[in-house]
Amino acid sequence: SGAKDIESMIKDLKVAAKAIKSTRPTAVNLSWGVDRVLKAVSDAFDVRGIRDIALQEARDIAEEDIETNKLIGKYGAKLLKDGDTVLTHCNAGRLACVDWGTALGVVRSAIAEGKEIKVLACETRPLNQGSRITTWELMQDKIPVTLIADSMAGWAMRQGLVNSVLVGADRITQDVVFNKIGTYTHSVLAKEHEIPFYVAAPISTFDFEGWEGSIKIEMRNPDELRFTGCEQLAPKDVQVYNPAFDATPMENVTAMITERGVFYPPILLDEVLV
Amino acid sequence: SGAKDIESMIKDLKVAAKAIKSTRPTAVNLSWGVDRVLKAVSDAFDVRGIRDIALQEARDIAEEDIETNKLIGKYGAKLLKDGDTVLTHCNAGRLACVDWGTALGVVRSAIAEGKEIKVLACETRPLNQGSRITTWELMQDKIPVTLIADSMAGWAMRQGLVNSVLVGADRITQDVVFNKIGTYTHSVLAKEHEIPFYVAAPISTFDFEGWEGSIKIEMRNPDELRFTGCEQLAPKDVQVYNPAFDATPMENVTAMITERGVFYPPILLDEVLV
Repeated sequence: SGAKDIESMIKDLKVAAKAIKSTRPTAVNLSWGVDRVLKAVSDAFDVRGIRDIALQEARDIAEEDIETNKLIGKYGAKLLKDGDTVLTHCNAGRLACVDWGTALGVVRSAIAEGKEIKVLACETRPLNQGSRITTWELMQDKIPVTLIADSMAGWAMRQGLVNSVLVGADRITQDVVFNKIGTYTHSVLAKEHEIPFYVAAPISTFDFEGWEGSIKIEMRNPDELRFTGCEQLAPKDVQVYNPAFDATPMENVTAMITERGVFYPPILLDEVLV
Repeated sequence: SGAKDIESMIKDLKVAAKAIKSTRPTAVNLSWGVDRVLKAVSDAFDVRGIRDIALQEARDIAEEDIETNKLIGKYGAKLLKDGDTVLTHCNAGRLACVDWGTALGVVRSAIAEGKEIKVLACETRPLNQGSRITTWELMQDKIPVTLIADSMAGWAMRQGLVNSVLVGADRITQDVVFNKIGTYTHSVLAKEHEIPFYVAAPISTFDFEGWEGSIKIEMRNPDELRFTGCEQLAPKDVQVYNPAFDATPMENVTAMITERGVFYPPILLDEVLV
C-alpha cells in the first residue's frame, strides 16, 4: 500500500483482507489469521506503526503455527504404530502450513520418535496437490512415500495396505470436517475397512458457530477437470461438477488431533476448549 | 501374415492370439473371442480359407456383440427410472464394446424407451477414459453428461445426485467382479448411501472356474501417474502403486445385467446359464 495516512492505510488493509479471505471461503483459519492482523493494527498510531505491527503479528502467527503443529505432531504420533502405513489426501504438510505441517507433522513426529512410518499419498484430483507437493515434500525428508490415484484408496485398504487415514482440515464445525474434495470418500472407505480415520488440525480451524448446512462449498473452474496444464483431458465444452471441498460427518472421524490433545467424537467442539 | 502354407499360417495366428490376449490378462472375453477365431479356422483347408474364416468369425462376433448388448440394454433399462442420474466409471460404451455398449448401452436403451437419464462420468484415473471417451461418446448422442473427479463420487452421492451406479466388467468370477481400478471404491460408496450398484456385462465375461484369489491383477507403468501426456504431475522418481483393475465382492453388487436377464447375487454364476 502506498497510503500516506492511517485511514486510507486501514482501508487498503481491509480491501486486502477481504481479497485474501475470499480466496478460500471454506477455510476458517485463514480468515482467523487475517482478522488477528487487522485487530492488532488497531493499536497503531501511524502508517509506519501499522506496517510494523502487521508484519510482527504475521511473524508471530507463523511462529505459533510451528509450535502448534509440533504439539499436534506430539499428540498424533501416539496414534501411529511402528511399521504403519498412513494414507493421506491433498497436502497438510510444511507447504500448506508452516514448516512442520499438521497431518504430515504427525508423520514427522512419529518418525522423530523412532517409528518406521510409510505414507500412501493420494494424487488429489483435480489439482494434484498430493502428486505435486506431498510426495515431493516427503521425498525431501526421505520419508517413504508411494503415490496412488484417489480411486485406488479403497482397493489399497482391501489389500491390507493401509493402517490409518490421516488428513488435515479447512474448517471443523460441530457436525462435520470440511477438507479437500475426496476426503469424505476416504472416510467412508476407512469405516468399511475398520481403519481409523484421523483429522489433524489446529484449534484455529474450529468454527464453533458453523454447521454443515451453513457453509457454502466453493465451486471451482470446470477447466480444472478438462485440462491439466498443456494437456486436454476431456471435451472442451463438457459439463463439469467441481466442488473444492467436501464435508465428513463426525461419526466417520475416529479422532481429532489438535494442539490441546486428541479428542474422540462424539463431543461438542466447545468441550475441546474447556 | 505372409505365410504360404497352413502350418506357418496357424503358427502366425497363434503368435498373434497370444499377443492379443496378453494385452489385457484380467479381461476374459477378449481371450474368449480370440479362442473362438482360433477354433473356427481349424476347419479350413488352405491359407485363403483360414483368412476368410477368421475374418467371418470376427465379423460374426462383432454382430453378436451388438445383439448381446442390445439385450443387456433391454433388461437393464427396466432398472432405471425416468429422471435418474447414473454414475459410471471408465468406458463401457460403444468405444469399448461394439456400437451399443454394455453400461452405456443400458442408458441408451432407457433413453430409447423415452426415459430421461443423466450420466455422471468419473474421469477414471490414471488414463482418463471417462473424461476422454465416455463424455465424448455421450455428447455425440446428446445424452446429458457431467464429468467429475473419481474422488467426488462419494460427495455426489451424499448430496443426493446419484440414483444408481452402473459399470461394466472385465471378468466376473463366482465371488467378485473385476473391473477398472476405482470400481470397488464406488461399490463401497454405493452401499453406504443405499444406492443400487449394477454391473452390465455379457456372459462371455463370466469365468466359471475363477475366484478372486486365482486372478493376477495387471500392474501398469508408474509413469501413468507421474505424467499426463506432456505434463509432469509428480517427481520423476516417486514410487507408484498402479493396479489396472480391482475386484468388487458380489455382496456389494445389487444386480448383474446380462443378455440372459438380470441376476441378483447371491447366486452361483452357473445358475445364470441353466
